[in-house]
Amino acid sequence: MAVAVEFAQSPAEVLRVGSGFTLASVDPDSTPGYPGAKADGKALLEAQDARMAELQEKLFAQGRFGSPKRLLLILQAMDTAGKGGIVSHVVGAMDPQGVQLHAFKAPTDEEKSHDFLWRIEKQSPAAGMVGVFDRSHYEDVLIHRVHGWADASELERRYAAINDFEARLADQGTTIVKVMLNISKDEQKERLVARLDDPSKHWKYSSGDLAERAFWDDYMDAYGVAFEKTSTDTAPWHVVPANKKWYARIAVQQLLLDALESLQLDWPKADFDVAAERALVVAS
Amino acid sequence: MAVAVEFAQSPAEVLRVGSGFTLASVDPDSTPGYPGAKADGKALLEAQDARMAELQEKLFAQGRFGSPKRLLLILQAMDTAGKGGIVSHVVGAMDPQGVQLHAFKAPTDEEKSHDFLWRIEKQSPAAGMVGVFDRSHYEDVLIHRVHGWADASELERRYAAINDFEARLADQGTTIVKVMLNISKDEQKERLVARLDDPSKHWKYSSGDLAERAFWDDYMDAYGVAFEKTSTDTAPWHVVPANKKWYARIAVQQLLLDALESLQLDWPKADFDVAAERALVVAS
Repeated sequence: MAVAVEFAQSPAEVLRVGSGFTLASVDPDSTPGYPGAKADGKALLEAQDARMAELQEKLFAQGRFGSPKRLLLILQAMDTAGKGGIVSHVVGAMDPQGVQLHAFKAPTDEEKSHDFLWRIEKQSPAAGMVGVFDRSHYEDVLIHRVHGWADASELERRYAAINDFEARLADQGTTIVKVMLNISKDEQKERLVARLDDPSKHWKYSSGDLAERAFWDDYMDAYGVAFEKTSTDTAPWHVVPANKKWYARIAVQQLLLDALESLQLDWPKADFDVAAERALVVAS
Repeated sequence: MAVAVEFAQSPAEVLRVGSGFTLASVDPDSTPGYPGAKADGKALLEAQDARMAELQEKLFAQGRFGSPKRLLLILQAMDTAGKGGIVSHVVGAMDPQGVQLHAFKAPTDEEKSHDFLWRIEKQSPAAGMVGVFDRSHYEDVLIHRVHGWADASELERRYAAINDFEARLADQGTTIVKVMLNISKDEQKERLVARLDDPSKHWKYSSGDLAERAFWDDYMDAYGVAFEKTSTDTAPWHVVPANKKWYARIAVQQLLLDALESLQLDWPKADFDVAAERALVVAS
């Protein structure tokens, strides 16, 4: 079997939002750090499924043995950017038992009566788990900024609260991987049209998507400010060019693999006398 | 590509617990209804993944458009019987966004202060979702009967309560698939020894498993009574021979496929003017 083409540069480095970053400088069609083509990328995605599954199982096993380690993937993007594809094609390789996925919708009345982080905290992953947020607390500084639902001082409070919150999760053992899938406005148009041209995709279309599309530039501004305020050393943002779905998937896969590798996970050591238990089982 | 060997008889029929059923009559090594061998079964499992994923997506899409339909897979079994393998290899083919998986552990103090169905109701699947219970309310008539934690009249109350509860879920749109994975006592011994002989599996071993193993016959009795009391037309039990993991997986896969097919799912019709929306998108 041919060896898959791997990343030449780590997505964790080349896609990271550092100081001086501007969203406008990212080409949504580009494939930073990856020297291969589409077929290579698809092969890589599949080739790494088994390693992803093993690392995730080790994380889960460690959790059972008292380790506080856990992983949280936060996905943000404009509509049609491919969050769902990341969930099914990247996260889908992991054992469902070890994954806590939550898609955040518009908050309920009860959720609105609490601080914006109240519903987020409830969905934070347990020890040993891989949490996935499809949208997140960042909606409260994105759509809220775009539509003026929060004023400047409230937004400032939220950025700071988010940083404190994420720092606490990290202190508690959570490795946070924040990803913005970055498509171009033209690519979104093509994808919306494609949805409308395929009756099996009509259910994914909402006229609300079009309404938000009209605020494209405001969203890009809101993302820019959010990155500036919340791309911390503890929980940096990564902007993943996403016009090419295959690239976005391997980039996020690699971010997760690197995060899991950094935890130096191993199988937990037995906390019982293996030989003695074995003798008991054999005699049973 | 070769066509996969399919079931000759429907698992929904040949594995169904009907009147006069006895657990002792099931050979855990058998492969009822399936004429193929292991390699055929493995090929079938993979060949049907795409159909499973499509049916699940249709269910999910319908849920978004107001359909009350949902699916609930209830998995019960002795330790090592392969519940985890069903979750990762069968359920794992579905989009994680449409799956609500819950592994029921020993109840917490709060859960114990409520009726046994309190924590179950909370985990019942939402419209459009595939719910998976790894263990369930049946623990309350299995381990509780084996260890005498509930007396005869309380057990009777629970069987009746379970039937009422499941009938309500069904009335509400839930298709319930109840599966007991049936391994032999010898097979369990082999699997426990195999866990102890593989350091990467030690974390899955608990000396509590051995303690429960000592009550094997009592568990089989408890399963027998539970089947008799709760294998209803609305929510029949299926006993899946599980000494051969590959067979158990394709049998459960087929049960789920049949359940999903029976819902006659189709893509929801657009509730908006497709051409008009398309024109708006193109102009945007």
